[in-house]
Amino acid sequence: MKNVIITIGREYGSGGHYIGKMLAEQLNIPCYDKELLVEVAKGGEYSQEMVEKNDEKPNGFMYSLFGGTSSYGLPLNQRVFLAQFEKVRELAEKGPCVFVGRCADYVLSDRENVLNVFIYTDMETKRQRVIEYYGVPEKKALETIKKTNKKRAEYYNFYTDKKWGNASNYHLSIDSKIGVEKVVELIKKYIELM
Amino acid sequence: MKNVIITIGREYGSGGHYIGKMLAEQLNIPCYDKELLVEVAKGGEYSQEMVEKNDEKPNGFMYSLFGGTSSYGLPLNQRVFLAQFEKVRELAEKGPCVFVGRCADYVLSDRENVLNVFIYTDMETKRQRVIEYYGVPEKKALETIKKTNKKRAEYYNFYTDKKWGNASNYHLSIDSKIGVEKVVELIKKYIELM
Repeated sequence: MKNVIITIGREYGSGGHYIGKMLAEQLNIPCYDKELLVEVAKGGEYSQEMVEKNDEKPNGFMYSLFGGTSSYGLPLNQRVFLAQFEKVRELAEKGPCVFVGRCADYVLSDRENVLNVFIYTDMETKRQRVIEYYGVPEKKALETIKKTNKKRAEYYNFYTDKKWGNASNYHLSIDSKIGVEKVVELIKKYIELM
Repeated sequence: MKNVIITIGREYGSGGHYIGKMLAEQLNIPCYDKELLVEVAKGGEYSQEMVEKNDEKPNGFMYSLFGGTSSYGLPLNQRVFLAQFEKVRELAEKGPCVFVGRCADYVLSDRENVLNVFIYTDMETKRQRVIEYYGVPEKKALETIKKTNKKRAEYYNFYTDKKWGNASNYHLSIDSKIGVEKVVELIKKYIELM
């Protein structure tokens, strides 16, 4: 395995999380997604509940008002972001791994040998996926997908100077409609070519 | 070779045209880029010069005023677009091929077995490329790149209901910084997986 760190940005419902896990498993390297939050909570400053509640939340003015501003001056969700930011850099130092979400592409933009991937797909494929695999009720599927992806975009656009889902942020963007296993194959091919 | 039609959207300076040619050559199928214009001109209604002058030109209000409105009611560049539109559909009927630019992804959006690819890269890579391969003077490189890509975006955004360079328009978006030969390898891998 080359000394590569893979970051995966992903639309909710695209299977990006599953792709990250499968890729990491096949490459025999760690995958950090929600695990990152556990790692942050281990630091002791924030409880896991606090971290989870403030994970990938957008940071508009309204949210700052009601999300709770702390004595440190920064709203809690921004402090959680910064703690994750540091954790991503720290884990990247340890060697090859996969990061799913958390603006890891942006956090690691000054590193060499980072492969930034974006996973997305059409609405119908996402809808079927969240009903079948995420257990979202059929009636709520569309709304949940739209809401979650809107939040992810806001989060990414707020913390980075880029636009979520714009091809030029990533080395590789893949529509997962072709199938998650095949997406993993393609990413491995890219790593082989690096 | 599977019965696949490949469309390539590309930033000016990314090597997308070269990638299209190389891919078509390796797959032993035709590649249409400027060739499309020759095909349109063959139809007889427009001279090749007319077609070339109006190729991939954006269509703002100002352009409509000064670009020349014809007796047919539509500005010339729109009529050239429509003639290309028809030619793309006609050529796609003949079998596997590669289309570079000309909104072919949009034109063929109702067809099965179409692979839409977008090629782009960072500004410095584009700058080096246009100086080395396109013969653009160093002093003019940046300006030429920005201007040409602005026009391409305007053209695409005008004729389609999508945003140029947004990952979700394509099955696959690849940063060509990795090298044009490797991009071709990756596209071939995708076709193999289809």
